[in-house]
Amino acid sequence: MKKLNIGIIGAGRIGSLHAKSITYNVPSANIKGITDVNIDNAKKVAFELGIERIYSDYKEILADPDVDAVLICSSTDTHADIAIEAAKAGKHIFCEKPVDLTPEKVQAVIDAVNKAGVKLQVGFNRRFDHNFSAVKGMINDGKIGDVQVIKITSRDPLPPPAEYSAVSGGMFLDMTIHDFDMAMFLAGSEVTEVYANAACLVDPAIGHAGDVDTAVISLKFASGAIGVIDNCRKAAYGYDQRVEVLGTKGAAVASNDTPTNVTFMGEDGVISDKPLYFFLERYMQSFRDEMVEFVDAVVNDKPTPTTGIDGLNSVLVALAAKKSVAEGKPICL
Amino acid sequence: MKKLNIGIIGAGRIGSLHAKSITYNVPSANIKGITDVNIDNAKKVAFELGIERIYSDYKEILADPDVDAVLICSSTDTHADIAIEAAKAGKHIFCEKPVDLTPEKVQAVIDAVNKAGVKLQVGFNRRFDHNFSAVKGMINDGKIGDVQVIKITSRDPLPPPAEYSAVSGGMFLDMTIHDFDMAMFLAGSEVTEVYANAACLVDPAIGHAGDVDTAVISLKFASGAIGVIDNCRKAAYGYDQRVEVLGTKGAAVASNDTPTNVTFMGEDGVISDKPLYFFLERYMQSFRDEMVEFVDAVVNDKPTPTTGIDGLNSVLVALAAKKSVAEGKPICL
Amino acid sequence: MKKLNIGIIGAGRIGSLHAKSITYNVPSANIKGITDVNIDNAKKVAFELGIERIYSDYKEILADPDVDAVLICSSTDTHADIAIEAAKAGKHIFCEKPVDLTPEKVQAVIDAVNKAGVKLQVGFNRRFDHNFSAVKGMINDGKIGDVQVIKITSRDPLPPPAEYSAVSGGMFLDMTIHDFDMAMFLAGSEVTEVYANAACLVDPAIGHAGDVDTAVISLKFASGAIGVIDNCRKAAYGYDQRVEVLGTKGAAVASNDTPTNVTFMGEDGVISDKPLYFFLERYMQSFRDEMVEFVDAVVNDKPTPTTGIDGLNSVLVALAAKKSVAEGKPICL
Amino acid sequence: MKKLNIGIIGAGRIGSLHAKSITYNVPSANIKGITDVNIDNAKKVAFELGIERIYSDYKEILADPDVDAVLICSSTDTHADIAIEAAKAGKHIFCEKPVDLTPEKVQAVIDAVNKAGVKLQVGFNRRFDHNFSAVKGMINDGKIGDVQVIKITSRDPLPPPAEYSAVSGGMFLDMTIHDFDMAMFLAGSEVTEVYANAACLVDPAIGHAGDVDTAVISLKFASGAIGVIDNCRKAAYGYDQRVEVLGTKGAAVASNDTPTNVTFMGEDGVISDKPLYFFLERYMQSFRDEMVEFVDAVVNDKPTPTTGIDGLNSVLVALAAKKSVAEGKPICL
Repeated sequence: MKKLNIGIIGAGRIGSLHAKSITYNVPSANIKGITDVNIDNAKKVAFELGIERIYSDYKEILADPDVDAVLICSSTDTHADIAIEAAKAGKHIFCEKPVDLTPEKVQAVIDAVNKAGVKLQVGFNRRFDHNFSAVKGMINDGKIGDVQVIKITSRDPLPPPAEYSAVSGGMFLDMTIHDFDMAMFLAGSEVTEVYANAACLVDPAIGHAGDVDTAVISLKFASGAIGVIDNCRKAAYGYDQRVEVLGTKGAAVASNDTPTNVTFMGEDGVISDKPLYFFLERYMQSFRDEMVEFVDAVVNDKPTPTTGIDGLNSVLVALAAKKSVAEGKPICL
Repeated sequence: MKKLNIGIIGAGRIGSLHAKSITYNVPSANIKGITDVNIDNAKKVAFELGIERIYSDYKEILADPDVDAVLICSSTDTHADIAIEAAKAGKHIFCEKPVDLTPEKVQAVIDAVNKAGVKLQVGFNRRFDHNFSAVKGMINDGKIGDVQVIKITSRDPLPPPAEYSAVSGGMFLDMTIHDFDMAMFLAGSEVTEVYANAACLVDPAIGHAGDVDTAVISLKFASGAIGVIDNCRKAAYGYDQRVEVLGTKGAAVASNDTPTNVTFMGEDGVISDKPLYFFLERYMQSFRDEMVEFVDAVVNDKPTPTTGIDGLNSVLVALAAKKSVAEGKPICL
Repeated sequence: MKKLNIGIIGAGRIGSLHAKSITYNVPSANIKGITDVNIDNAKKVAFELGIERIYSDYKEILADPDVDAVLICSSTDTHADIAIEAAKAGKHIFCEKPVDLTPEKVQAVIDAVNKAGVKLQVGFNRRFDHNFSAVKGMINDGKIGDVQVIKITSRDPLPPPAEYSAVSGGMFLDMTIHDFDMAMFLAGSEVTEVYANAACLVDPAIGHAGDVDTAVISLKFASGAIGVIDNCRKAAYGYDQRVEVLGTKGAAVASNDTPTNVTFMGEDGVISDKPLYFFLERYMQSFRDEMVEFVDAVVNDKPTPTTGIDGLNSVLVALAAKKSVAEGKPICL
Repeated sequence: MKKLNIGIIGAGRIGSLHAKSITYNVPSANIKGITDVNIDNAKKVAFELGIERIYSDYKEILADPDVDAVLICSSTDTHADIAIEAAKAGKHIFCEKPVDLTPEKVQAVIDAVNKAGVKLQVGFNRRFDHNFSAVKGMINDGKIGDVQVIKITSRDPLPPPAEYSAVSGGMFLDMTIHDFDMAMFLAGSEVTEVYANAACLVDPAIGHAGDVDTAVISLKFASGAIGVIDNCRKAAYGYDQRVEVLGTKGAAVASNDTPTNVTFMGEDGVISDKPLYFFLERYMQSFRDEMVEFVDAVVNDKPTPTTGIDGLNSVLVALAAKKSVAEGKPICL
């Protein structure tokens, strides 16, 4: 069986993570080569994992006839252009989220991909998380009944630097975008209305940069279900990632993962672990599994589990949330 | 020490519950007599608990010079008028919630009480619940830091008959009113904006009666904190009463109470108890404790822990929530 | 319906507790009178609860023709003699545990009771605890299957004064006796062999007094099941009262009860409540329910739920445990 | 940096597991070659992982000058002889547990290893489990205080075939041996007395084969602490692996690991996951980590974390437990 040859564009935190996942967990794929705007990053990863080729530029990867598929792990502002070029070069694409901060460019990627007939998977890794995928499984199996209310809690252990707000597009496009995708994934339905109740309660510098750091976002779905996401850029106890779905037959509740299941009972109370530290720890399993699914989709010509449309929808909802804060009212999609 | 003599107006479910609480748990009070529009109800309770006097009418209670204080446990539409008469008669007042469905009449009660110089306590029993009062204690002790987000989940095991919707003023005035009071109690701050995202997903008859049965209600507080309440008139697993407060130092989470702490581990999974069945089971302790506090406030001339203003505020927020659904936008208070 | 008239012998901690339970929770009983070796104790309880008669001596209670049943809540060394006299006087008997520290005197009580044809209930209140009775219910319902292993954890928040060891008969007769009864209750079978692995690890003074404060006690039951009890006179986190039963269909696990179900998530971890402080808090519900059952057994002429034989068996097992420590080997019964 | 070259003897379930762990998780080691009594097993693993050499016999591995260390993953009865030969050949040794069923042969291995000056690590992987090593860490940090009571629950999802009992040496040498090692690891002290209360309650065929399937084993440690292990060959809800340590400052409790942290609240109760299925799932992380430690010990000339003495001690305790059942009394070591 011929292995799928992959080229990785971007050797930063997420690019090197995917490189390791593929090397150790995806026997049907092979990393042909890697590149990075900082070539030393690419060399370091290549050396550690025994990757054959180091490219000086992503265009070399797209030109390499031995490469079947690319992972786009570069900075967000380059995603869409690279993806469009990759499609034209006939490469299958795994693109980190968000595809772009504007719906127009996301649509352009979708169009390019469709025209070229290549696969596109967007990096909504949380759909593959063991807890959340189990909740989705319960919904699909009819165990929960008709979905009525979806609740997502998503809090970070630390806020990003305030200057990051401008680059990232703000909290809704950077952080909540995962939750918007999760909400639509669980609802099995698109969002039709957003009302974002947001504030700057963690770091005033974030507010000065024009962003928010705390929010309760109310959602309506096309299915009739309703939802709510609560975000905070900083929780003293760490990375809080929970989901709850109420349906006519019951409710599924996904709690946090922890380093251990050890509890200490002492004079000060009964103490158990804080959640796993941050997304690398919490979602490592999902990063692995999304890569397995991507390779499987390409090799066996199946639909990818997270599509360009998913990428587009989450950007549309995030932009509506920003608008809702700016205008102080619910926004219909 | 002279005991506080109490007259009870209304011998239904909640009136007889208070009668028992006082008899068995409040040694500094004595139930002098009881009345009910259905006199047989009053007789039954009086016989069971050894209550001295049975009145044919609430006006007899107000006229009885031996009665120091009254509990108003009659139907909601009679609360305000009786309370105003009671104040004029110089009786201290414990009034079940809501005081009235209109802010004007609640204000009239407050005015009458102030003029007469009597005590008024409104039956927001949940403030006395062991879990929720512990959360409030953590806030007061500074353990949670500055309050950022308040989340309340409140779901019933069964919806009321659809025809009840009209009488009760609808879900927000009947059910969520407790949650509005809890939200302001925990925030230590008034609500300044309400956006109610509501639907009829449990029983179409409730919708036909002009009411909703499922809601996610987004709140802004004067303090700058934000909040959310999610309600459903029917949860398959029973009475779901949870609260969560996120602050700068951490989060307090109040889970449900259960009949036992026994878990069964078997082939089908690890199974533990559903929540206590409904409000009588779940809040019995709080019903007792609010009565202890009322008697203490009267006997020792202290402020009552839940005032007419609390009663007024919760009605104002509930009416704003109704308006928000009708107009499809956030309502400022 | 005539009420059962009860006389209470002993107005200390447990006697006054039962007096309150009956007054407030057992409508079919009436406390006719009370006595105590310290008459002021009796007066205090009588005044607080409105009890009609104060007796100067327990013999006056036994001579009072208006008294139907007695509660023996005096010091352990007087239980058996009073019980025998009470039986001769034709009074039904609720006797606190242990009936006596010697099997001979327990047997003498059983004989006297049988001869007189009166009821005898022994105060093994834990059988009525909501958690443990739920576990027993699962066994009876066949949910757990055939019982294979019974595990009981029983730890106190504080050790008694070392001088108490001699008076009480030592840890096995004073503290573990409850666990021995619970083990046989859950097994539905008598103990046939005991091996006690005990040490003095909490307070050397307890060891100097000839007693132990920490133990793992291995049990064989006539049914073929096996069991283990672990005890400690002091747990830093408080009163630890857990039970676990493994059967062919699964395992039931009873965890501790706590003051609240509130968890605090902060920088130091996820912290929840310690167990309820001590036996008065933890077992209040069971003290109430055993009294309801006793009155029901007498009034409706039913068998009492905990008999003299139960009292005898637990003493026999406790003495075997003491012997096992002394001889360093398992003891057969 | 030169990598440690490893030869693997035995390509069954545990040998292939270690092969994968080293390939994917131990960058400082390289698998030079593999063998198995069934050569097809060795070929399959070698092909899947790209292992260079396939040996027809373990003696070829010992003769290969390129091999620095061996993993002995063959059948238990061959462990000791191969280990002695490997020591003579100057190879460092990782040996699966038990080293042998007789203390004499375990001692012979220790002597050979000492004489040759090679490293020996015994496969007590559970010491590396995230939960249990966290409990050990709390003990080492003084958080628990002086250790008083150690409790280990260890139950399998399914019994082995009855005929396996003879080959394996019986439950104590095959299954409980892990728990004996864990008990001594946590106590930081050797076992001085064992009393095993055992029965055949799962499968009569196990009893006919002369073995037991259910046990409560009482332990005394040289430190003065006491302990208890409860075992069952079959729990309806699966693989139950818990540990509890009580000390003067509190208690640490390690609960089971589960596939997800999702709970379903429905009409039948609140249902969460059963434990991870069996030892491969439950202890995968510990299998990885013990291999990292072994390679580190050899490469950096550190003591191995689990030694031949640990292997010897656990066998001695297991044999004492067998003797205790046979003689019906506690056995001193």
